This record gives sequence, structure tokens and C-alpha cells, in this order.
Amino acid sequence: MKHRNFKTVPKMIFGRGAFDQLDDVLMVERKSADDYVVFLVDEIHKDKPLAGRIPQQDGDMLIWLDVTDEPKTKYVDALTEQVQAYAKAHKNGKDPVSVIGLGGGSSLDIGKAVALLLNNPGGAASYQGWDLIKNPAVHHVGIPTISGTGAEASRTTVLTGPDKKLGMNSDYTVFDQIIMDPDLIAGVPKNQWFYTGMDCYIHNVEALEGTYINEFARAFGEKSMALCHQVFLEDHPESDEKLMMASYMGGQSIAYSQVGACHALSYGLSYVLGYHHGIGNCIAFNVLEDFYPEGVATFRKMVAKHNIDLPKNIMKDVTEAQMEKMIRTSQGLAPLWDNVYGPSWKEKVTPELLRGLFSRM
Amino acid sequence: MKHRNFKTVPKMIFGRGAFDQLDDVLMVERKSADDYVVFLVDEIHKDKPLAGRIPQQDGDMLIWLDVTDEPKTKYVDALTEQVQAYAKAHKNGKDPVSVIGLGGGSSLDIGKAVALLLNNPGGAASYQGWDLIKNPAVHHVGIPTISGTGAEASRTTVLTGPDKKLGMNSDYTVFDQIIMDPDLIAGVPKNQWFYTGMDCYIHNVEALEGTYINEFARAFGEKSMALCHQVFLEDHPESDEKLMMASYMGGQSIAYSQVGACHALSYGLSYVLGYHHGIGNCIAFNVLEDFYPEGVATFRKMVAKHNIDLPKNIMKDVTEAQMEKMIRTSQGLAPLWDNVYGPSWKEKVTPELLRGLFSRM
Repeated sequence: MKHRNFKTVPKMIFGRGAFDQLDDVLMVERKSADDYVVFLVDEIHKDKPLAGRIPQQDGDMLIWLDVTDEPKTKYVDALTEQVQAYAKAHKNGKDPVSVIGLGGGSSLDIGKAVALLLNNPGGAASYQGWDLIKNPAVHHVGIPTISGTGAEASRTTVLTGPDKKLGMNSDYTVFDQIIMDPDLIAGVPKNQWFYTGMDCYIHNVEALEGTYINEFARAFGEKSMALCHQVFLEDHPESDEKLMMASYMGGQSIAYSQVGACHALSYGLSYVLGYHHGIGNCIAFNVLEDFYPEGVATFRKMVAKHNIDLPKNIMKDVTEAQMEKMIRTSQGLAPLWDNVYGPSWKEKVTPELLRGLFSRM
Repeated sequence: MKHRNFKTVPKMIFGRGAFDQLDDVLMVERKSADDYVVFLVDEIHKDKPLAGRIPQQDGDMLIWLDVTDEPKTKYVDALTEQVQAYAKAHKNGKDPVSVIGLGGGSSLDIGKAVALLLNNPGGAASYQGWDLIKNPAVHHVGIPTISGTGAEASRTTVLTGPDKKLGMNSDYTVFDQIIMDPDLIAGVPKNQWFYTGMDCYIHNVEALEGTYINEFARAFGEKSMALCHQVFLEDHPESDEKLMMASYMGGQSIAYSQVGACHALSYGLSYVLGYHHGIGNCIAFNVLEDFYPEGVATFRKMVAKHNIDLPKNIMKDVTEAQMEKMIRTSQGLAPLWDNVYGPSWKEKVTPELLRGLFSRM
């Protein structure tokens, strides 16, 4: 049996105010006068003080990202072409020396994807899968402004393509540098803070109760879980710091574990009905008390404590065709179900089971 | 205030049997027919089954390490010259494509040091300190066969030089790859297992109670501590796995924390009386109940549970000159005392205080 050779983010800065060290980080990459960097920033920050703190120099490129929808392969292809056109017109075709993703999970994933696609031709859809990327990415930096997805730590960039929602999973996907500045996640709107944080919490439940886990993943997952409890049940004074660490450690734990039933259902919700990942997870998790009794009970306490109105009856206008597509999408996620049930999952994950779960959402 | 840009091991394999994946790891580095690697292996493994599993190929170099004493600058210089002489005679001066350190903390540190010194001329003593290394190291791999030092995760290689015991601290020091195979630490002799594990435990106490810590280091330190409790108080069935993770996470926590009073005293013991780091820490920690009341109480439970005979009255034959040298060595470790007391440490860490503590050992 072979164990994964886990590629992790090799450099990180953690601490309040660390965002201001981005300039120093980029100075190391800027080696000649016409070197430039590309900032890919969630447009939510456009008129905020953070925008004025971006260390943009003459010749750098800044693109405001539209993350209304989760990242599509089409969108990251268009962004890559935009960078390439800029390079051709202004820089004799020279690639940027660094690509910075600044924002939530979508912005981080877009940063990873563009850095990869600049060096790997043919469009994002052709790389959805595992280890299909051939060439190293351009140097890329991730800076979360909301925590919970684990995107800052992971080797994937989740994309919705023409025929599937699936990441570009590769060692080259991993950021070269992350900056974890708890100041940046202070003041995120309550619902988004909660749904994104729950991505981490739910992932920990699925990983810790799954069949794939080993003691490396367990150590990270258990600590991430304990931090989630402090943040979402105890109002800990260092909640920003702790949530940021929970997200990072949750991401690390995925090295030797896997998500489970909730993510399998949630992928179906996102792909067919367009729900964002965080809220989709919460909707799905809330019907999984048979799978994760303790995890769901604690989750409901967190929902109640923070007065979150989970969407209900979301299936009432869903067509039979949509339902079948959701079931198919969910059922197709073999490793996730394998992590839940072990190799016998195929007998257990029937369309009836999935229809029953979706119908209760 | 600037936060450290923490360089971490970028690739790791964790799991029982992972040692056998070393061959695959090295195959990636072996790009041409005359490429070779250097194995630096604790000689304790010489006649053990592990020796037969080292993936040595024609042209590779294997050196059995004498770690009777902790690594000296003189010794790593001699090893480096030995590799260079081999390179000159057999490989037209070509450096190895990888250096593998296999063993305990000393062997790992020697692996790091030789990989650095092959690319940085002038001898190890000239690089003892912080960020003095100019050039990246040769690719280097760390494989612990005993756990607790955190050497697998750290950016230092602790060396005893002509006038100090001090590491070569540098981003280049960090391993390119580690392999954490819990099989390798099964069957370590009891005392050594305990003393080395306590290095991790004690370091966690010092870090968690210190002034330097932030929430990144706290998350890693607390989990490492919880794992130490499972291993040393609860005889957990997955003790090998958990101790290995405790060591790794303890090493990670040092990114944003510092050791304290125990390591300061223990450095004095090692430098003047030659005690190995692990046992030196235990001897020193046992007199620090005023500094770390809870930590020392738990430590004594662990000592009792495992029937460890801590050396006592070790100062009875020490000369006044030796005592003064220990005091001077210990007092000189400014960042450690700063971590204990904050900036006012100079008023508090008097020769009398240190003499009192050493005298009780």
C-alpha cells in the first residue's frame, strides 16, 4: 500500500497585519524592471480600505473578480486570456512573476487556476481531474479574506465545467505562499461567515468519521474541529485567529482523508441548482443525522446559537429531470462514498437513498 | 510589527511502510546515469533489517554516522569533505542529487548540515546563527527513526561549535521531503524513547506558557501536547503514529513560538557536561516547578508511569569553572529568557538564580 506524498504550502505568514508583508513577498519575485504581478481580487473589496493597501506597482495588473457564481472553467479561461493579451501587448508576451488570489475560496481557486493555465495550454476543462497538469504554475500567492474552505491549503481548485464540477487536482496547484491575516476576516457578513466556516466544520466531521483517515489527518482534523467548537459555540475572543487556523488545519487534514456524504450531496445541489458550496453543505448536512448523529446535533446548536435561517423546502419547484441529474452527480462521486461506506458503497448508495435525502432538503 | 514568513517542509509522506517509498522519491531526483545520492545513517541501524531496505544503487554513497556525541561542526565539516572527496574521485566533482538523513534528531541535523555545506563553503562554524546561509542546499530528505526532537520540521540544525552550541537557522535548512513511517520508531529502547519524546512535551510546555506565542503556534502546540498525553499517560494503541505527529506538530509550532527556561538550562548542561539534549531537558525540567507548575507535575507522572530513573546529583563533581560556564551559556540565550519573562528578563535571570537551579539537578 502506498501513502500519498503530500505537497503542502511551503511558505506562510500568520498574524494580524500580515497583509502588509505582501509587498516584501512580491519584491523577492520582482527581479527585473519589467517584471509584473497580477492581482485577482474579489470585487467585494473594490471600494473597501483593503483595495488601497494592495501593493500594486506600475505595470501590474489588477482584475476585480465576479464571484457571483462559483468559478467556471469558461471564466478562468477568459481571465487567463485577458492576462495573456496584456502580456502580449505590454510585456512582449512575458508572463507575470506572480499571481495573487485575494478573497474567499472562489478567488483563491481562481488565483490557482490562472497561475496553472498560464503555463498549461488548452483550457481549464481539459485539466479537471487528478494529476493532469503537466507544467508547474506561475508563482502564486493566496490570501483569504474569509475562512473555512481550506482552499489556502489544498491541492485543488474546484471548477464547474461543461460537464462536471471537479477540481484541477495537482501538486502544482498548491500555493507557493499564503498570508493568513486574521484582520482580513473580521467583519465578514454573518451568514457568509457561518456558511463558509461550516464548510470546515462539516468537512472535519466527514473526514474524522470516514474510512480513509490516518493519524496524520486525524491530528489535524481533531484540532480543526476543536477550534470550530471554540469559534461557533464559545464565542472565543480570538475567534478570527482560531477560525483561520481551523480552516488551514482542515485543509491539511484532507491530505490523508476525504469528505463524505454531505459533500457528495452538496456537489449535486451546486451543479444543478447553483447553490454556493458553503450554504449547499449546510442544507445537505441538516438531513444527514443518520450518517453523522453527533455532528449534526452540534451543527444544529451552532445554527440556533447564531440565528441562521437555513433555506428549507428548496426542492418544491425542482423538476424530475433536475432531481435525476442531482442524484447522478452525487452518486458519481465514488471516493466520497467509499470514504463513507468502504468498498461496498455501490450497494448502499442507491438512487432511492439519494432521492429521499434530497427530498427532505 | 512583522510576522515571520515561515518556511515549512513542502512534501511529506506519512504512514506505516512509507520508508519503502524512498526509492520512488529518489528516482525523481536521479535524472542522469551518473547521478547519485548520499545516505547518512545512524550506525545503530547498521546490523538491523532497516539497513537492508535502504534503496542504495551503484555509485551511491552510504556513511554510518557516529552520534555518540551530539553533532559537532568539526564532524559535519569532515563528512562534507568526505562527500566532496568522493565526488572528485568518482563523479568529476558532481554533487549528489540528494542527501538523506536517517535516524534521530542528530542524524537528521547532520543530513541538513551536509546538504547545506556542500553548497556553502567555509565550514559549519561560520554559519552558526540566523540566516547566514547564502545558497540553497542540495535536495535533502529527512527520515526519523525516533520521535520528539521536531528536527524533521524545523529550520535549524543544532551544532556544537568551537565556541558555542547554536544552530544553522535558515529557510534553506528545511528538508525538501520528509518520510514519517511509524514502523521505524517502534522498538526504540525505552529510555531513549522517553527522553526524546519529552523533548517534544517540554518544548510544548515552554511554548504554550511563553510570551512569544500566537494562535498558529498555539493550535499546533496544543494538539502536540494532547498527543503527548495520549502517548505518555494513556498508552494509546496508536502511540507510534501519535508520537510521530506530536513531534511534527511541535516542530511546526516553533514557527511562532520559542522554547524557554528548560532549554536554556539544558543547553548549558549539554555544552559543558556533554548531556544529550533529551536527557538534559528532563534533568533541567525536573527543577522548574516554579516556572511550569502544571507541566512539571504532569512530567513527573510520566516519569513515574514509565519507571524512568532520572539522573540525580549530577553537579556533585562539577568544578566552579564548569558551573560558571554553564551559567554563562544559559544566561546568554536571550530569546529564550525573553519568551519566559518578556523584555525585563535581564533583571530576573541572575547568576544566582541559575546557580540555584543547576545546583538542584
